[in-house]
Amino acid sequence: MDTLINSLTDIVGKTGVLLGDDVAQRSVDWFTKASCQAKAIIRPQSTEQLSQVMTLCYEANQPVVTHGGLTGVVHGAVASPDELVVSLELMNQIEHIDAVGSTMQVQAGVTLQHVQEAAQEIDMQFALDLGARGSCTIGGNIATNAGGIRVIRYGMMRQQVLGLEVVLSDGTVVSSMNTMLKNNAGYDLKQMFMGSEGTLGIVTRAVLRLHPNMPSEQTAFVAVPSFDALTSLLKMASKELANSLSAFEALWNNHYALMTSATTKHTALLANNSLFYAIIETLGSDDEKDAEAFASVLEKALEAELITDAVLASSSSQREGIWAVREDIETLVHALDPMFSYDISLPITHMDEYVTALESKLKAQWPETCELVVFGHLGDGNLHIIVTVRDASQDARRQVEELVYGSLVKYNGSISAEHGVGLEKRDYLTLSRSPEEIALMKRLKQAMDPKGLLNPGKILA
Amino acid sequence: MDTLINSLTDIVGKTGVLLGDDVAQRSVDWFTKASCQAKAIIRPQSTEQLSQVMTLCYEANQPVVTHGGLTGVVHGAVASPDELVVSLELMNQIEHIDAVGSTMQVQAGVTLQHVQEAAQEIDMQFALDLGARGSCTIGGNIATNAGGIRVIRYGMMRQQVLGLEVVLSDGTVVSSMNTMLKNNAGYDLKQMFMGSEGTLGIVTRAVLRLHPNMPSEQTAFVAVPSFDALTSLLKMASKELANSLSAFEALWNNHYALMTSATTKHTALLANNSLFYAIIETLGSDDEKDAEAFASVLEKALEAELITDAVLASSSSQREGIWAVREDIETLVHALDPMFSYDISLPITHMDEYVTALESKLKAQWPETCELVVFGHLGDGNLHIIVTVRDASQDARRQVEELVYGSLVKYNGSISAEHGVGLEKRDYLTLSRSPEEIALMKRLKQAMDPKGLLNPGKILA
Repeated sequence: MDTLINSLTDIVGKTGVLLGDDVAQRSVDWFTKASCQAKAIIRPQSTEQLSQVMTLCYEANQPVVTHGGLTGVVHGAVASPDELVVSLELMNQIEHIDAVGSTMQVQAGVTLQHVQEAAQEIDMQFALDLGARGSCTIGGNIATNAGGIRVIRYGMMRQQVLGLEVVLSDGTVVSSMNTMLKNNAGYDLKQMFMGSEGTLGIVTRAVLRLHPNMPSEQTAFVAVPSFDALTSLLKMASKELANSLSAFEALWNNHYALMTSATTKHTALLANNSLFYAIIETLGSDDEKDAEAFASVLEKALEAELITDAVLASSSSQREGIWAVREDIETLVHALDPMFSYDISLPITHMDEYVTALESKLKAQWPETCELVVFGHLGDGNLHIIVTVRDASQDARRQVEELVYGSLVKYNGSISAEHGVGLEKRDYLTLSRSPEEIALMKRLKQAMDPKGLLNPGKILA
Repeated sequence: MDTLINSLTDIVGKTGVLLGDDVAQRSVDWFTKASCQAKAIIRPQSTEQLSQVMTLCYEANQPVVTHGGLTGVVHGAVASPDELVVSLELMNQIEHIDAVGSTMQVQAGVTLQHVQEAAQEIDMQFALDLGARGSCTIGGNIATNAGGIRVIRYGMMRQQVLGLEVVLSDGTVVSSMNTMLKNNAGYDLKQMFMGSEGTLGIVTRAVLRLHPNMPSEQTAFVAVPSFDALTSLLKMASKELANSLSAFEALWNNHYALMTSATTKHTALLANNSLFYAIIETLGSDDEKDAEAFASVLEKALEAELITDAVLASSSSQREGIWAVREDIETLVHALDPMFSYDISLPITHMDEYVTALESKLKAQWPETCELVVFGHLGDGNLHIIVTVRDASQDARRQVEELVYGSLVKYNGSISAEHGVGLEKRDYLTLSRSPEEIALMKRLKQAMDPKGLLNPGKILA
C-alpha cells in the first residue's frame, strides 16, 4: 500500500478505504458491468475529510474519479489502476427540511428515492424522477444534470438545485448553500458544476427545491397514426393541459412491438399496428376535475384523429403497467444483445426525418442483422435510440455511432440529451459543439482544475 | 476623435457611433438618471461587427461597458470617460419562431415586451415579466438574470434561455444556440454568462423558451392579519393552486398605506388597517373552472382566518388596478425622496423577524425622519425594501446599507435577489458570499476576461 493511501487512511479511517476485491467487485457502468480498476476507493464521512483528502491528492498529483450510485451509462465513472476513486456513499444524510421555504438540505451520497420519500412524508414532492431512482445519488444527479420523465413540467436536475457545496481539486471547500429561489449576488457558481461530470469539482452537499405534492395522476397510453399527428397531439396536450402536463413520452412502433412480443412480461395495452404510441401524464391536486379535463382532451384528440385508440389507467397497477413498457430496459438488453444505446436530442420537427434516414442507412449497411428501437421524451426533443447489428465489435460500434451522431449535425442536434459525455461520447463532442465552445470548456477546466486531477479524460480529451 | 474610434467607425459605420451630446443625454441608471460619461457609444449591427469591434478593443486594451435597455438600478451600466459603451440597440430583431419546438430566436437588443407580444401572436407566452418590460432588452435580462413577478411559476430568466451567443473580450464568438430542452453535451457554457452583468462576455443572440399561452388570469388582493397567516396562506395557495399559482406578492402595511394615502392615483382596494396584504394570481386555460377553484381557495382562507378581506378582479381594469399598486414605483420615489432602495432575499420564515428588527434599528438611529416600505415576491423569498431618512448624503446611505445588509448575515440572506450587484452592492458582496466563493468568481473572471476589459469594476473590485 503506498504512502498516499496510508495518509488518506489516517484521514478517513480504515472503514473509509476499500482495496483489492472490494474495489474490483464494483461495476462502473450499468450496461457493461465493467469492473472498477482504481487502486483504492476512498470514502470520506464529511466535507472536511474530503477537503483533507483532496489537499493531499493535489500535493501528490493524484488523479481522482468521483463515484455516486454508479448508474451512469457513458463510462463517466471508469477509473484506471493509477487513479483513486472518491465515493460519497458514506455521506448520505438528509440534513434539514424547510417546509415553508420548500427546501431540503442533503449530503451528496443520498439516493434520489430517499429524497423523494422524505419529501412525500411532508406532503411535498422532489420533482426529478428516473428509472434508477433507487440507486442513483443526488450528487450524481447533479454532476450529470440528470433529466428523466418530468422535465417537460419541472426541468432537469439543474432546476431542482438551489444551493451547492463543492470541494475543488486542491481541497478548497466552496460552499454556496443558498436556500432562496432568487439570489443574484455575484456569479451563480453552482451552475458550472452541474453537468460537469466530476471534472470541475466534487459535489458534497446541496440544497434542493421541493414542489407541492400532486396526489392526482392521470395516465394514458395512446396509439398515434403518424408523426404529424404526434406533434399535433403534443401541441394540443401542451396547450389544453398546460399547467398539469408532466410527461409526454413517445414510442416508435419498433419499440412497442418488441416490448409486447419479445416477452410475456407486458400485457399488450393496445394493438401493435400503429406507427407511434405515446404516454401522456398529468399531475394535479384534484382527482375528479383532473380526470375530467384529461378525458376531454383525449376525446378531442380522438375526434381530430390525432389518436386512434387509448387506454386510460384507472388504477395504480394499470399506471405501473403503462410505465413498465417504457421503463423496462432489461427486456431490450435481452432481446437486442449485443446492443448500442444512444441518447440524443434534436428539434422535434426534424425527428421523423432523422429517424427514417438513420434507419435506411443502418439497413443499407446491415440488411440482415440491423434492428432499431426508438422511444423517448418527445416534449423535450430527447430520443433514446437502441441499435443492434448483432456484432459487438468496436468496429461495428464505431460505424453505428458515426451514423447516429453524424446524421444529427444538419439539425444542430445533440449527441447527449441527458446521459452526459463521459468517455463514450467524447470523440463525438465536436459534432455537437463548435471549436470555440470546446476551447472555452478547456479554458474553464484549466482554470478550475489546473492539474487536471478530476475525472481525467472525461468529456474533454 | 482617437484612432481606435476611427477604426471602430470603419466597422460599424457612422450611424453606429454616438459621440458628445448623444452620449451624455443617456442616463445609465433608472433611479438616479445619472448621465453616461463614456467617450463613445458603439452600436454594432451584427455579431460579426461586434466581434471585429472587440478584437480591436482587446488589442488596444480598451475597456467596454455593454448597454441594453438601461433599466438597471445598481449602477451596472455606469461608464467612465476612458471607457467605451457597446449598445446592442441596433440588434433588435426576432429571427425565428418555432411553434412546435416552442422556441424563439432573437437578437439581444430586442425588448422584453416585443418578445412577449410576438409569443402572444402565435398563442404562446414568454414567461418572464417585469415592470420595465417596454424598455428592458432580452440581452439585459440575460446579463442580469432578471426575475420579476412570475418566478414562482416559471423561474427566472435563466430558465427561459435555451441557447446563447456571446462575444468574448478578445472578439471570439461563442455560439451555443441550442434549441432543445435537454442538452448535456459538455459544459453548459451559457450558464456562466447569465447573471454575470456583462463582466464575462457580451450577449448577442439567444434562443428563448416559450410556454403555452394562459388566457385565464385570476387575480385577488387580500388583507392578511399576521405574518404567520401570510406564510400559511402561501402554503395553502402553493398546495391548492399548485399548478396554476403564478404570483404571490406580499405588501407590508407601510407600503399599502402609503400607496393609498400619498396619492389619489390608486383607489383603495381594501381598508388600510391590516398588517399585511397579498396579491395572488393564477394562470390557466379554462376561465370558468379556474375562477371556481380560485374562489374556493379564497373562501377556505377566509374560513381559516388567514385572510380577513378580499377583492377578486372581475375585469382586466380591476386586475390592472391591483397590479398598479404593486408596480407603481414612481409614487414611492415621489413620497420618499430622497430614498434608498434594496432588493434582498432571505428564508421566508425569517422575514418578519428581519423586517421588525431592521425597522427598530432604523427608528433608533433616525427617530424623526425614517420611513420604511416593504413589499415583494414572498414566494421567492425576495423583498424590496425602500428606506428614507430624508438625507441623501453618502454617509446616510452607507449607514442605512449597513443596517439593511448587515442584518441579513445571520439568516444567510442575499444582498441581491434579482437586481444584481453592479457597483452599488459590490462592497457588500462579502456579506452574502464567502471568501472561497469570491476567489472562485475572480478565478473565473480572470480565465474569461484576462485583461479585465468587460464592465470593469462591476460585481468584483
